[in-house]
Amino acid sequence: MRVRNKPWAKPYIEEHPNLIVTDPVPLKGNWQSRFSAVQPLHVEIGTGKGQFIVEMARLHPEINFLGIEIQTSVIAIALKKVVESELPNIQLILSDGADVDTFFDPNEIDEIYLNFSDPWPKTKHEKRRLTSAGFLKNYQDVLKPDGLLQFKTDNRGLFEYSLVSLNNFGMIFQGVWLDLHQANDEVEDVQTEYEQKFSALGPIYQVIAKFNQA
Amino acid sequence: MRVRNKPWAKPYIEEHPNLIVTDPVPLKGNWQSRFSAVQPLHVEIGTGKGQFIVEMARLHPEINFLGIEIQTSVIAIALKKVVESELPNIQLILSDGADVDTFFDPNEIDEIYLNFSDPWPKTKHEKRRLTSAGFLKNYQDVLKPDGLLQFKTDNRGLFEYSLVSLNNFGMIFQGVWLDLHQANDEVEDVQTEYEQKFSALGPIYQVIAKFNQA
Ligand SMILES: C[S@@+](CC[C@H](N)C(=O)[O-])C[C@H]1O[C@@H](n2cnc3c(N)ncnc32)[C@H](O)[C@@H]1O
Ligand SMILES: C[S@@+](CC[C@H](N)C(=O)[O-])C[C@H]1O[C@@H](n2cnc3c(N)ncnc32)[C@H](O)[C@@H]1O
Repeated sequence: MRVRNKPWAKPYIEEHPNLIVTDPVPLKGNWQSRFSAVQPLHVEIGTGKGQFIVEMARLHPEINFLGIEIQTSVIAIALKKVVESELPNIQLILSDGADVDTFFDPNEIDEIYLNFSDPWPKTKHEKRRLTSAGFLKNYQDVLKPDGLLQFKTDNRGLFEYSLVSLNNFGMIFQGVWLDLHQANDEVEDVQTEYEQKFSALGPIYQVIAKFNQA
Repeated sequence: MRVRNKPWAKPYIEEHPNLIVTDPVPLKGNWQSRFSAVQPLHVEIGTGKGQFIVEMARLHPEINFLGIEIQTSVIAIALKKVVESELPNIQLILSDGADVDTFFDPNEIDEIYLNFSDPWPKTKHEKRRLTSAGFLKNYQDVLKPDGLLQFKTDNRGLFEYSLVSLNNFGMIFQGVWLDLHQANDEVEDVQTEYEQKFSALGPIYQVIAKFNQA
């Protein structure tokens, strides 16, 4: 997602050190200290403008949510939503999701969400895709043994790639949806900004998978 | 697929014992004897009216093809195509694909195709789906270690189920296509009767997978 540079973003982030972390490594193993209650931790990588994670935090007060986003001008918009929500169970990280293994201890995370990740369609950029083996390795390092990875996208090529990548990594599929908005089963779908924008153009795909056999 | 009963079907089948087998068990381990050349064996389960397998046999003289279909009135139509083709590398079996483990020796098959298999959408009929664990076990028993299973369908629910079922069985995905007719890569797609009929209504899905790590 390209957004115009926002001069107000950096100072606004600096004004809210209680809600957003720009140096996550020192908090490794201590993320629960950032929340008002010790409870399961769900992390979204590539949070964008934050609609999904803020709404999830509202719907699930029994879970702590952490959104990671690499672009200052983008996460500033998510931060606005977090500030306005006044919720005690949501925090943000401005950093690169490629480094989650340096932000978290093993078993520190209960669930990871990837929503409408950048597709990087060229083969030479495969390693940048958030569902490529290098990233999966890092997710495995920080997720609880039975922790879930939830991925949704409108991008057919990226989803085809991701199904193969997760499978080849040895992940175990819990469910696959090839048109989430037409799903028969009662599956909770909190929509992201991208989802709202692009679902009119074609199906939304989703896979939920874990690393370990039950 | 429901077709009207065809009084000519049974006598027509009986007239062509050189092209169609109605008692496959005695041929276990000896299927190559039915063909003019010893070469890789590809088996389709649920052959229907035979367009796919006859066209495949025409395109691939270096492979022996065997189509299994359970309905007499349906396979009779496939048999007509086989007779007219005069190809030396195609044979049919009138029988239940659930029993492939009794028709073939271990390692006797190089590749299995499932095309537009009946969806059996009700959960209580899961065991009848050709991609359910019981069937996969039988395919594994008769396929070569690196042998491929190729499955395509227009049925979203069946494909979602099948991705999870193959993955949970431990199969390794070689490729997934979520809109085969819009695929960017040059993938050979010989169309079946169902594919021609239903591809205007929505995407054709395909997965290619194998049982063993390379
Ligand atoms: C296509 S946008 C989707 C945003 C949001 N999830 C949605 O669905 O509306 C992808 C987002 O992921 C962010 N992103 C890409 N790579 C990232 C990484 N390695 N770490 C953190 N964020 C990343 C981008 O900056 C962008 O905001
Ligand atoms: C929906 S039709 C598709 C036919 C063909 N493959 C096509 O794509 O046009 C499914 C076919 O599978 C056959 N079939 C279903 N279960 C079978 C089984 N257990 N063994 C062999 N054939 C089976 C049915 O009789 C039917 O002809």
